[in-house]
Amino acid sequence: MAVWGERLAGVRGVLLDISGVLVDSCAGGGVPIPGSVEAVARLKQSQLKVRFCTNETQKSLGKLVGLLQQLGFDISEKEVTSPGPAACQILKERGLRPHLLIHDEIRSEFDKIDTSNPNCVVIADAGDYFSYKNMNKAFQVLMELENPVLISLGKGRYYKATSGLMLDVGAYVKALEYACGVEAEVVGKPSPEFFQNALQVMGVEAHQAVMIGDDIVGDIGGAQRCGMRALQVRTGKFRPSDEHHPEVKADGYVDNLAEAVDLLLQHADK
Amino acid sequence: MAVWGERLAGVRGVLLDISGVLVDSCAGGGVPIPGSVEAVARLKQSQLKVRFCTNETQKSLGKLVGLLQQLGFDISEKEVTSPGPAACQILKERGLRPHLLIHDEIRSEFDKIDTSNPNCVVIADAGDYFSYKNMNKAFQVLMELENPVLISLGKGRYYKATSGLMLDVGAYVKALEYACGVEAEVVGKPSPEFFQNALQVMGVEAHQAVMIGDDIVGDIGGAQRCGMRALQVRTGKFRPSDEHHPEVKADGYVDNLAEAVDLLLQHADK
Repeated sequence: MAVWGERLAGVRGVLLDISGVLVDSCAGGGVPIPGSVEAVARLKQSQLKVRFCTNETQKSLGKLVGLLQQLGFDISEKEVTSPGPAACQILKERGLRPHLLIHDEIRSEFDKIDTSNPNCVVIADAGDYFSYKNMNKAFQVLMELENPVLISLGKGRYYKATSGLMLDVGAYVKALEYACGVEAEVVGKPSPEFFQNALQVMGVEAHQAVMIGDDIVGDIGGAQRCGMRALQVRTGKFRPSDEHHPEVKADGYVDNLAEAVDLLLQHADK
Repeated sequence: MAVWGERLAGVRGVLLDISGVLVDSCAGGGVPIPGSVEAVARLKQSQLKVRFCTNETQKSLGKLVGLLQQLGFDISEKEVTSPGPAACQILKERGLRPHLLIHDEIRSEFDKIDTSNPNCVVIADAGDYFSYKNMNKAFQVLMELENPVLISLGKGRYYKATSGLMLDVGAYVKALEYACGVEAEVVGKPSPEFFQNALQVMGVEAHQAVMIGDDIVGDIGGAQRCGMRALQVRTGKFRPSDEHHPEVKADGYVDNLAEAVDLLLQHADK
């Protein structure tokens, strides 16, 4: 196990993805991935700093955290970095008034944003709200703008629900990018600003931090590009082919969060 | 006008796009673009060979031609090259059993195709059938295949309806390509095989033919890559920025089909 000692040497902070690492989504909310409730508890009892870093945009932050607490997780809203608040800050700074192509569940996060006479489109994982009619409306708003701005909360390809793999917002972002000839600005993973914000709140440098996620591109590749280390769990949307990804190689592959925490508690910060 | 004489010298055959050139689509069917009924009639009375070349997949070929006839156009089914029949031939040749993500209106074109236990996905302009649920089903079928095959009937970005610009199949193709990491095989414009098939039926060489369309990429760029000339009409989905497209330059821009036919009758085959 000397190899793990090298891989995890000097780690002081841990960023945890939520969907696919803590829970698998399902229609009602989520089911814990075996061992993950205890793994989070053990991690938080250790010397390591812990923060959660999610692209979840089908539920408001409050609702997401409430559901995780009901499932037994030790988590609070202030411990989570999520794209909604980050997007609101960008909109305010740049005087942008969004047309919102988002799930009704997170509409409240944009309550204080002026949405009249839109001059941009914000797209998030809208699930069933990705009807042709709603997509077409967002497309028409963009086509009527002289300088179309498309802001995407995450750019994931798909995620794992208990019922199977589900299309994520990234697919619909690509659709609008192609139709309108624009490139979306991504808020959320794998945007470097998003990871850096999470690190800053944790008070840990990138080289002292490790990301644990199930998405080889968004979690692992994104974190590594910021100078962090990253472990991929073999839960959630993990597929065996991820271990031979043409562009991204994780610093380690583990069966699940419980194994990652075992290794961290044994080898980190040494 | 000497320039038109050069541009159209030696033209013996004309390929006509339908949507945006003959008609603008609307919920009920379509409305003729002013002057286009007479322009088609004049063209067909001339020495020039004429064929229609469409990516229309929201209506069956029979229904499309029936609607155009009702609007006064001189057109029959055997004069139209459309993607449905071309796709069926490919499916049969390669033993492919499609999951169909298509409009109910064209389902009859696939009546003789085995769709049990799918080993590919065929996507066409499904309009309101592009629900999240239907997109997700197609995504899941592709993800379960060892060698995913995605066949797309056209790859247009958008088209013009009387109610405004509407997202076309290409946007949804991009969504599935990104989510599944595949590249679609396009049947229809701008596929070279599709244009070549139309030319062959007309009995005209590419250098003797001109395409008339409203889509700078699919119609104009596609036809030019096959060695044809191509005129863009300023109707349908035409936008002024098309005349300064970074990659495609039409052999000429005309206000509408009527002007194109005026020029052809004056200058072609000379």
